[in-house]
Amino acid sequence: MVKIGLIGYGYWGPNLVRNFLLQDECRVLQIADNKPEKLALVQKIHPTIAVTSSFDDLVNNTELDAILISTPVFTHFDLAQKALSAGKHVLLEKPMASSSREAEELHELALKKNLVLMVDHTFLYTGAVQKMKELISGKFIGKPLYFDSTRINLGLFQQDINVLWDLAPHDLSIMLHLIHEKPFSVNATGISHTGNQVENIAYMTVNFNSGFIAHFDCSWSSPVKVRSTLIGGDKKMIYYNDLEPTEKIKIYDTGFDHKTDEDKTRILVDYRVGDIYIPKLSNHEALAGVATDFIRAVTQKTTPIADSRLGCEVVKILEASQESIKQKGREVKILN
Amino acid sequence: MVKIGLIGYGYWGPNLVRNFLLQDECRVLQIADNKPEKLALVQKIHPTIAVTSSFDDLVNNTELDAILISTPVFTHFDLAQKALSAGKHVLLEKPMASSSREAEELHELALKKNLVLMVDHTFLYTGAVQKMKELISGKFIGKPLYFDSTRINLGLFQQDINVLWDLAPHDLSIMLHLIHEKPFSVNATGISHTGNQVENIAYMTVNFNSGFIAHFDCSWSSPVKVRSTLIGGDKKMIYYNDLEPTEKIKIYDTGFDHKTDEDKTRILVDYRVGDIYIPKLSNHEALAGVATDFIRAVTQKTTPIADSRLGCEVVKILEASQESIKQKGREVKILN
Amino acid sequence: MVKIGLIGYGYWGPNLVRNFLLQDECRVLQIADNKPEKLALVQKIHPTIAVTSSFDDLVNNTELDAILISTPVFTHFDLAQKALSAGKHVLLEKPMASSSREAEELHELALKKNLVLMVDHTFLYTGAVQKMKELISGKFIGKPLYFDSTRINLGLFQQDINVLWDLAPHDLSIMLHLIHEKPFSVNATGISHTGNQVENIAYMTVNFNSGFIAHFDCSWSSPVKVRSTLIGGDKKMIYYNDLEPTEKIKIYDTGFDHKTDEDKTRILVDYRVGDIYIPKLSNHEALAGVATDFIRAVTQKTTPIADSRLGCEVVKILEASQESIKQKGREVKILN
Amino acid sequence: MVKIGLIGYGYWGPNLVRNFLLQDECRVLQIADNKPEKLALVQKIHPTIAVTSSFDDLVNNTELDAILISTPVFTHFDLAQKALSAGKHVLLEKPMASSSREAEELHELALKKNLVLMVDHTFLYTGAVQKMKELISGKFIGKPLYFDSTRINLGLFQQDINVLWDLAPHDLSIMLHLIHEKPFSVNATGISHTGNQVENIAYMTVNFNSGFIAHFDCSWSSPVKVRSTLIGGDKKMIYYNDLEPTEKIKIYDTGFDHKTDEDKTRILVDYRVGDIYIPKLSNHEALAGVATDFIRAVTQKTTPIADSRLGCEVVKILEASQESIKQKGREVKILN
Repeated sequence: MVKIGLIGYGYWGPNLVRNFLLQDECRVLQIADNKPEKLALVQKIHPTIAVTSSFDDLVNNTELDAILISTPVFTHFDLAQKALSAGKHVLLEKPMASSSREAEELHELALKKNLVLMVDHTFLYTGAVQKMKELISGKFIGKPLYFDSTRINLGLFQQDINVLWDLAPHDLSIMLHLIHEKPFSVNATGISHTGNQVENIAYMTVNFNSGFIAHFDCSWSSPVKVRSTLIGGDKKMIYYNDLEPTEKIKIYDTGFDHKTDEDKTRILVDYRVGDIYIPKLSNHEALAGVATDFIRAVTQKTTPIADSRLGCEVVKILEASQESIKQKGREVKILN
Repeated sequence: MVKIGLIGYGYWGPNLVRNFLLQDECRVLQIADNKPEKLALVQKIHPTIAVTSSFDDLVNNTELDAILISTPVFTHFDLAQKALSAGKHVLLEKPMASSSREAEELHELALKKNLVLMVDHTFLYTGAVQKMKELISGKFIGKPLYFDSTRINLGLFQQDINVLWDLAPHDLSIMLHLIHEKPFSVNATGISHTGNQVENIAYMTVNFNSGFIAHFDCSWSSPVKVRSTLIGGDKKMIYYNDLEPTEKIKIYDTGFDHKTDEDKTRILVDYRVGDIYIPKLSNHEALAGVATDFIRAVTQKTTPIADSRLGCEVVKILEASQESIKQKGREVKILN
Repeated sequence: MVKIGLIGYGYWGPNLVRNFLLQDECRVLQIADNKPEKLALVQKIHPTIAVTSSFDDLVNNTELDAILISTPVFTHFDLAQKALSAGKHVLLEKPMASSSREAEELHELALKKNLVLMVDHTFLYTGAVQKMKELISGKFIGKPLYFDSTRINLGLFQQDINVLWDLAPHDLSIMLHLIHEKPFSVNATGISHTGNQVENIAYMTVNFNSGFIAHFDCSWSSPVKVRSTLIGGDKKMIYYNDLEPTEKIKIYDTGFDHKTDEDKTRILVDYRVGDIYIPKLSNHEALAGVATDFIRAVTQKTTPIADSRLGCEVVKILEASQESIKQKGREVKILN
Repeated sequence: MVKIGLIGYGYWGPNLVRNFLLQDECRVLQIADNKPEKLALVQKIHPTIAVTSSFDDLVNNTELDAILISTPVFTHFDLAQKALSAGKHVLLEKPMASSSREAEELHELALKKNLVLMVDHTFLYTGAVQKMKELISGKFIGKPLYFDSTRINLGLFQQDINVLWDLAPHDLSIMLHLIHEKPFSVNATGISHTGNQVENIAYMTVNFNSGFIAHFDCSWSSPVKVRSTLIGGDKKMIYYNDLEPTEKIKIYDTGFDHKTDEDKTRILVDYRVGDIYIPKLSNHEALAGVATDFIRAVTQKTTPIADSRLGCEVVKILEASQESIKQKGREVKILN
């Protein structure tokens, strides 16, 4: 029985509680938040869970095995470092930290202490991403050629992280999970309409040595909500529309081959356009998968899908994007 | 009565013929194409129109007042130069030419000879763009903040122009028509999956001094057809989806204001999300508008909406995008 | 503080508990279900709520003021009668009962005992229906002409009620709430693909004396989920698509007038097609509105929107539809 | 070389001309219309086609082999009778005639004179219907269970035929083409909002002896355009949405089986919900298929798909629907 504490009962925290409550092998014992009205809400709905306004109470609570951290990014490093140092397993909201240095440090600390450090990249646990993983690993789409993602909506303007740091972690984690090649460099452009140098609209191209290309369009300022990704292979192509209630994945039996004509002067491209296939997806709640994977990692010493290695990779790309925006779109290499 | 010849009876030529035939003040007298089967088709459907395989026949036909040029981009400069030199008014397919030097030269030649030189940026004549022009000119959306366009589909791979040259002219002409500020510089990235350095997927950010930003996502390799543009203002936002049969324009009564809080440390953004309004659009065929505007320019010496000045601006941005791709995404200034 | 018991912790029960728990003026004290695993689930998530397998425990629990009944239709009459007889206020799932006689009897009993008897016609509490009520009451759409509803999906085949009894209560309650005229008669057709005379697909026309017409298409056997209603007026028309996440209501500024031409031989119809308008809707959870309305009715003696009078009207139309199907589609009058 | 005349150059006539012009083995020689501006239009676009305001000129033109009749329904019988009597093959717009008696008489006359009489049920020649025909004939969907069609839009109110006569011929021809069982009876309801007893909204259930059921929802008064049909089988189900540009057919690997449980008291229904498959469709223009089928029937004595036998069946169902509306929705048998 894994005994759990949570810090941060804001937007996402209640979802974590609801899902961990339904896990067989765990109990949620304590919740910390600095807003009294949030703690009152916990007491009304879950009268048996203890509440506190002090994060240290969780760290010092020797009954707890693990702490879920659902707070703003800039707090992640301190909170996670304390929790790990106190010997607690940690589930951290995404993105993992504000810099690759911090992310790496947390990763090393967890390794040293032999504790689970998992990042809540929830999308990796959806039926849609699981199906795409299966298709791409099985070479079903052939050689991957591109990944083109759009995640735009009216979004809360953040104070300290720009729209890429806020939204792109979803898509970057999906891309890193699906595509085995390591990205090489980043170009990014964007704009801040509030004059505080925190971009509310930004675009990022991630370059790979093989000729694979990835692009990310992120905005807090779109009146239309879009969450879609195209993944093209030379044999098949996938359209992933997360806003569809059930038909999230469409697989197009479409591809193209090219050859040079006899006198070597022209490239001839052969298209193939065929049927479309919409696979049935598992419709479990993704966050339930996160909870299960975390509990299993804690109790059985398995490596979770969304481990801190992947969390670090996401942060490195974000860091490179920020540098590229600063350098007016120039190509910036991703740290190794 | 304006007497018209056409060169190029391929994909777009028949549409030009059909629309000019329905104009009151013009007659289509002669069509040139280098494929005999195309000429046979003309003879079957329009037995009274003369056909020829030689473009020079059109240029030398003293009966003709104007020539419509609907051929690949790399032929535009030579054909248009000949036609203008022979004293013919010219309607040229988009993009106007393969380089800004050629485009400017044609523009100057037409000015000198006092002839109409119009570029077939058909989209400017749609009910949707006309309505957006009216809304944006009337300050209805407030201060324009961004333009974000996606135009992707399975497309014929061109040999000599990349996907931006092929598809972005539509969106660039719309942007230049709607937004009065002159763009300043371009960043572009892309990839060629055929190894011939002709990008089949490319992304372009167009930067403006005022803080307005425009982005263009173009692909010949998407299994899904998308033709949509978001135009955000600080008062209202427009979603333009050209694939909708009638409800192409959605206006969101959505905007945001920002202020700095008292102690100057935080930017506070106020959202407003309100109703949505879908205006009724004129549903005339856009190409009929092109034909009318061209005939009027010839007969009444008016300036067409899609004049060669706008055609040159489009080409300059495309040229800068190509240079940026070559320089791995670096910012490239647009020629004045 | 209204003290509440619930019977039936199946599909809908947990939603009732969640919403009543969040109400200020009430507490959920006890839950009954005949499946032990459902009671175990209550104990895991809500360890402070008492559980029982016997409905009589609720009826005999003198601490309880009100009972929520979320069980199959055929049990409604007995359970509600017992609860009302024991002096408890009752919230009953829809449809209210299996026959108009039973529905009326419950209605009379509640009146006599001066207790609240409310039917959980949840849709009446959605932002979409509230907005349509406002528009139609305000004569915004002009004279109502038709109501055309489709509610189809893959649905659990019920044993004792057909698809109209299962699905049409939603749409009938909306229609009765929005349109003030009393319906006159019903035609219905349908088919049972399982051979047990319980129709899994059925169609119902509800006739009105004024020339208003309503139609309902219900199916448990559609692979596509549709939940939409068109409401036409002579001035404007409404399209209500409940599957849209936010843009559920579209108002078309479309209408038609007719007149007879001079020689009285032809009816001339004038169309007007104008803009479309999508109002912003309140996005509260409808079931929270149900809970609030019920608690208010209990504590302040107000009449809830979904009162037992409306519940009875719904059952009468369903009863007439069943008789019409039996009579091969013939018109059957609705009981007064 | 089949020589063709056309009567009626209104909405549909120009499409017929355009498609027959492109056929190899035919020529369009003459067009009749009673509106001078329509004839002027012909002369502008097709200066080599003769025009006349008199239909008799076509009948008496001994050069003509066949006549295309694209005029209002009430004129069909007279015009087709004259044309057939004069020895011309005939292509008739749908519905074939105003009554089953007239339809049968034309059918008999063509048989007797050994002439082609074809009805322009264009939809039978679409890639979508061809694909469904292939799937249903091949037992791919199993035993057909239902056909549920919606065809609504703002439509021109007709003076002499109601909305079922105007719109349902499309869906009835598709149903008769796809489903081999003969329909047995009809129930229909509807309303006339103009007071001239010509229904502008109507609903029709078509009953079959086997337990298959078909339903048709037709309206001239919907602000939303819908053209969709669900066809359910016990193995698979088809959703046909004619408004989708390319993905018109979706095949759901969904079905259900039922059995009675051991003690014979309950029907148990087993659902199966699987993948979805969207076949690539031929995207030829349907009307080109009509033209080819007609020319082939004339030159090679083949039976066209949309023969006059099918045309008669459509009219019989429409006639029964009208009688059912008159009898307030009662079941009316279809003539044999």
